[in-house]
Amino acid sequence: MKEVAIGIDIGGTNSVYGIVDREGKCLAESTIRTDKYDDVKDYVKELSSAIKELISAYSDESSLKLDVKGIGIGAPNGNYFRGTVEFAPNLRWKGVIHFADLFKEHFDFPVILTNDANAAAIGEMIYGAAKGMKDFIVVTLGTGLGSGFVANGEMIYGHDGFAGELGHTIAVHDGRPCGCGRNGCLEQYASATGIVKTVNEFLRKTSAPSLLRGEDTITSKKIHSAAIAGDKLALEAFDYTAKIIGRSLADVVAITSPEAIILFGGLALAGDYIFTPAKKYMEEYMLNIFKNKVKLLPSQIAGANAAVLGASALVWKSVRE
Amino acid sequence: MKEVAIGIDIGGTNSVYGIVDREGKCLAESTIRTDKYDDVKDYVKELSSAIKELISAYSDESSLKLDVKGIGIGAPNGNYFRGTVEFAPNLRWKGVIHFADLFKEHFDFPVILTNDANAAAIGEMIYGAAKGMKDFIVVTLGTGLGSGFVANGEMIYGHDGFAGELGHTIAVHDGRPCGCGRNGCLEQYASATGIVKTVNEFLRKTSAPSLLRGEDTITSKKIHSAAIAGDKLALEAFDYTAKIIGRSLADVVAITSPEAIILFGGLALAGDYIFTPAKKYMEEYMLNIFKNKVKLLPSQIAGANAAVLGASALVWKSVRE
Repeated sequence: MKEVAIGIDIGGTNSVYGIVDREGKCLAESTIRTDKYDDVKDYVKELSSAIKELISAYSDESSLKLDVKGIGIGAPNGNYFRGTVEFAPNLRWKGVIHFADLFKEHFDFPVILTNDANAAAIGEMIYGAAKGMKDFIVVTLGTGLGSGFVANGEMIYGHDGFAGELGHTIAVHDGRPCGCGRNGCLEQYASATGIVKTVNEFLRKTSAPSLLRGEDTITSKKIHSAAIAGDKLALEAFDYTAKIIGRSLADVVAITSPEAIILFGGLALAGDYIFTPAKKYMEEYMLNIFKNKVKLLPSQIAGANAAVLGASALVWKSVRE
Repeated sequence: MKEVAIGIDIGGTNSVYGIVDREGKCLAESTIRTDKYDDVKDYVKELSSAIKELISAYSDESSLKLDVKGIGIGAPNGNYFRGTVEFAPNLRWKGVIHFADLFKEHFDFPVILTNDANAAAIGEMIYGAAKGMKDFIVVTLGTGLGSGFVANGEMIYGHDGFAGELGHTIAVHDGRPCGCGRNGCLEQYASATGIVKTVNEFLRKTSAPSLLRGEDTITSKKIHSAAIAGDKLALEAFDYTAKIIGRSLADVVAITSPEAIILFGGLALAGDYIFTPAKKYMEEYMLNIFKNKVKLLPSQIAGANAAVLGASALVWKSVRE
């Protein structure tokens, strides 16, 4: 019998699911569309069947009997306490969706759900860059900015399960309008979408030549490529983004005094273009007693199935307790 | 036998110490000067003798035998992990002082030390406004601004024991210079010292009449009195202070999602002049999912011996574990 966990990453377009062992090896993975079901029950039914098929297919192929310890789900706007996804703007099902309960109708083992950034944090703790750490922060730099805070070896879910909304702290007073209805939220600057906004602003404000000028649609990948090619405007956009990230991280360090901050997600893949200046600015803005003490690390569960690994780690964390 | 804890609050001028029972009743209290000893060992020796005398005097008077469970110490720049006070600007002993070890030379029971804001937070948890809460924040509005964060029922000390420096997060970019060498720290605005700076700025910038104009030395107490008398400038200073507090608290809520935020210390005694507008601004700046969910409460261990109660609570917290 091989002990495994099922990890599910529910995204707006696709849902990725996989079978993961205790060492964080993804044994099998597959995907279904998230956005083609009017009724969330049909989606859960379909996904549950697909998971059962994946389990039996892997068992047959490998001649291993699997002992499934549980299902971990990472989802936008996920609430750990209630097992719900609440008012997720990128899902077609509105309001409060009781995902954990819905999956439990199809499975006999524990179902644990949290938001994607918390899942990433637990993934780093169980399999990744935060192994053995008790106090750290994971910041996911994707379309938006998510975060997961761990203190005393425990995820901080907060009183109502919605802790970790670092992306919605105000980084720039009276700054860019945010989808949340306020202005200047960190994720309007420090995210794949944010750096695109920065480049568009820079292009409008100056007439400096840039490889990005004249592009129909600017993406964070194109900005990264331009930076690699030495494009000054792209490099300045990374520097500006890193400054705002570094400044916010310095504040966050003063609050929870982590051992490390781990950057995860699309924009973090820009490597030195983001890490080097973010670290520089973080140290520059940091209170003396914390200077040169806090590691800024790349995720070690990044890669094709990072989100599935993160979600599956919820199961091991829960089993351990 | 009556179980008691000793609480010590080490301040720059005076050190207050007392005997506290499990219910948070201060049975006896006294004080010695902090600032008259060149050698910290002499200070600790003197204070230890004074504590022993207080214990035996109280035992004699009350005919109760006391079972002392430990000593809790709240101190500026206190480090829980190391039992040290490190580089405290307001103490005459420089560098790293191993207070816990020094006291252990005089006593046979546990000595636990942390910074004053963390002690206040544990005090609220054991005796005060946070009884039964697992996720809350205490903000001390005194000469400076301190904070203690509790998540999952545990104090967040952070990796190196210096967590909770909310006073040194940047509230105003390129704002007022701070003693820490940076600019715009929250405590330069949201503290007794901060509101005095605000009033002085307002007095310089306008010629509006005010009861505070012409005062030799403006204090936060005088500002409070002027506000009670309806002084417009004083009221505006409270509103400005509350706006900056409220804005920072809204950011902090997004990170740790507390059940309540408890305000403690001198400036918090200004009651409605600070609570009402701080609550208003906090809600105004808050992310939707948190709106009208987080209580803003006055301390319930405030009063003459609040700091001693807070420090003594460290002992009960430790005994409970």
